[in-house]
Amino acid sequence: MPPAQPATLASSAFLRACRRQPVDRVPVWFMRQAGRSLPEYRALRGEGPILDAVAKPELAAELTLQPVRRYGVDAAILFSDIVVPVASIGFGVDVVAGVGPVVERPFRSAHDLARLRPLEPEVDIPYVLETVRILAREIHVPLIGFAGAPFTVASYLVEGRPSRDYALTKALMRTEPALWRALLDALADMALTSLRAQVAAGASAVQLFDSWAGALSPEDYREHVLPSSSRVLEGMAGLGVPRIHFGVGTGELLGLMAEAGADVVGVDWRVPLDEARRRVGPDRAVQGNLDPTACLAPWEVVAEEARRVLARAGPEPGHVFNLGHGVLPQTNPDILRRLVDLVHEEGGRR
Amino acid sequence: MPPAQPATLASSAFLRACRRQPVDRVPVWFMRQAGRSLPEYRALRGEGPILDAVAKPELAAELTLQPVRRYGVDAAILFSDIVVPVASIGFGVDVVAGVGPVVERPFRSAHDLARLRPLEPEVDIPYVLETVRILAREIHVPLIGFAGAPFTVASYLVEGRPSRDYALTKALMRTEPALWRALLDALADMALTSLRAQVAAGASAVQLFDSWAGALSPEDYREHVLPSSSRVLEGMAGLGVPRIHFGVGTGELLGLMAEAGADVVGVDWRVPLDEARRRVGPDRAVQGNLDPTACLAPWEVVAEEARRVLARAGPEPGHVFNLGHGVLPQTNPDILRRLVDLVHEEGGRR
Repeated sequence: MPPAQPATLASSAFLRACRRQPVDRVPVWFMRQAGRSLPEYRALRGEGPILDAVAKPELAAELTLQPVRRYGVDAAILFSDIVVPVASIGFGVDVVAGVGPVVERPFRSAHDLARLRPLEPEVDIPYVLETVRILAREIHVPLIGFAGAPFTVASYLVEGRPSRDYALTKALMRTEPALWRALLDALADMALTSLRAQVAAGASAVQLFDSWAGALSPEDYREHVLPSSSRVLEGMAGLGVPRIHFGVGTGELLGLMAEAGADVVGVDWRVPLDEARRRVGPDRAVQGNLDPTACLAPWEVVAEEARRVLARAGPEPGHVFNLGHGVLPQTNPDILRRLVDLVHEEGGRR
Repeated sequence: MPPAQPATLASSAFLRACRRQPVDRVPVWFMRQAGRSLPEYRALRGEGPILDAVAKPELAAELTLQPVRRYGVDAAILFSDIVVPVASIGFGVDVVAGVGPVVERPFRSAHDLARLRPLEPEVDIPYVLETVRILAREIHVPLIGFAGAPFTVASYLVEGRPSRDYALTKALMRTEPALWRALLDALADMALTSLRAQVAAGASAVQLFDSWAGALSPEDYREHVLPSSSRVLEGMAGLGVPRIHFGVGTGELLGLMAEAGADVVGVDWRVPLDEARRRVGPDRAVQGNLDPTACLAPWEVVAEEARRVLARAGPEPGHVFNLGHGVLPQTNPDILRRLVDLVHEEGGRR
């Protein structure tokens, strides 16, 4: 059973907005807010591998808290990485600085399925759960746990590294649909197990990152990906924590991503939020969607674009302000701090 | 004045489909059909820089013709590259194998505008025009000339190399809108001059490649990019050659790309063609949109996906079959040959 939420958390603007309840102010947080652009992050984390930092609960908790203190955001997101579960069971995944996830022996055939044993959170990722427990004690805003969605994690395992066209991934999907489904379901079960453990340890919401699902046509997504993502999201239903479902370039998939079982659908900057609301339907909240590159402009331009996002989100409840993708490392932290203030001051009652 | 089209070309399925006139069979060609996956291409072209091959008219003409012979496609696309005009005026652009366009001194300030002098086709790119003239004499299918759209070419000049997030490009766009507009208009004039010269030399249609425009929100596209693309496309109106306007990930931009002045709007695989037709309106044809990675699957899967594309395009005139982006180098040429046959046999009268 997840720990009961303190009253202050349950009534937080972030959790209320996720549930499409009225709020006093529009809540805001940033993807990849935990670091990269913050000097105190770079000072504390140093140059070592990210997976090493994730494995140190006190450090990971502090890295999670830094942006909450600096920016005054309405939610914290766990400092971790979507490949942590597959790496923890020994699949041979490394996160290389300046590259991304690199897999020593990529997934290529049915033989590789045996390398994906079920995740045992208390054995495989005890440090993640310890980080969540530390944060649940210390934090005054909701903590967002997360997992990589089956397609996006599979794309790394199959390609062996970040890809532009996902050629090997999609070839496997079309050529060996049964093996593909077994791979995605194994990854779905790992994601579900990880998310449930994070909630049991104290996370107040979860986000499923299907960052690269936008590479798929709606037909391919519906046939080859949605069932496994739904396995994760439906498996998280009834736990009392909002489920956010996010991807990049997913304009044509927003309705299907809602259908997969999301309470909140993340939207990148390509689809205005009024149109996104039409696509996800009235039963879901939306999260987004300022272009991360907008934060590299002078403040007046940032402010104008942020106001446009608030205006497009409209007066109805159910908007969590965010960027359309992660914070770029070269972003000036002062811009993000001012952005949080603007959203709080101008994104009023709704 | 462009040379008069021979009667057989004017009545070709490709040109008729571009004009939304009834055809006996759906025409098909492939972006990047001129090479990469063809062994005869690799044998003829060798390992040298692509810009060197472009500068040899006999070679470039032969490379243009190879896929027409091998696949039986309904149109040839000039063997060239979108950076040829800027490279030809000495901006310092190289196309590096395995990387893409690399710019020695990227565009960063108003001083760099002086490095973009107007294009004089007969002086700067005589070899391109000679290639077109050779092809106009030899070819029995329409020849498509092309240019890079201002945004996409600008992204290379500003970033200095291929980019994932276009951070510098968009920062310039937002921070110095007047300089940005001057840059895009200079590139628009170069594209327009190049396209007009290609048509005068014998090209029967043109395609404006705005490959990376899909990185922009509709608002940013409308404000910062559409006017310059329109300058190219409207400048090509009245020449009697169809204008194709293409980009990747442009689902939210299709209506605006039509509005910019296109007769045919290229669509990637993310938007089903029936939906694409709604977005571009009844006055435009559509081109696309099989996922290029689909061609890596066994033939039965390719055939099924191609049939789905034909079905979604519907029975109305105005569909040019193509992939949603370029042919992947690892594609088996036999698959493409069978694909052309399938489109011709099953994409009947419409």
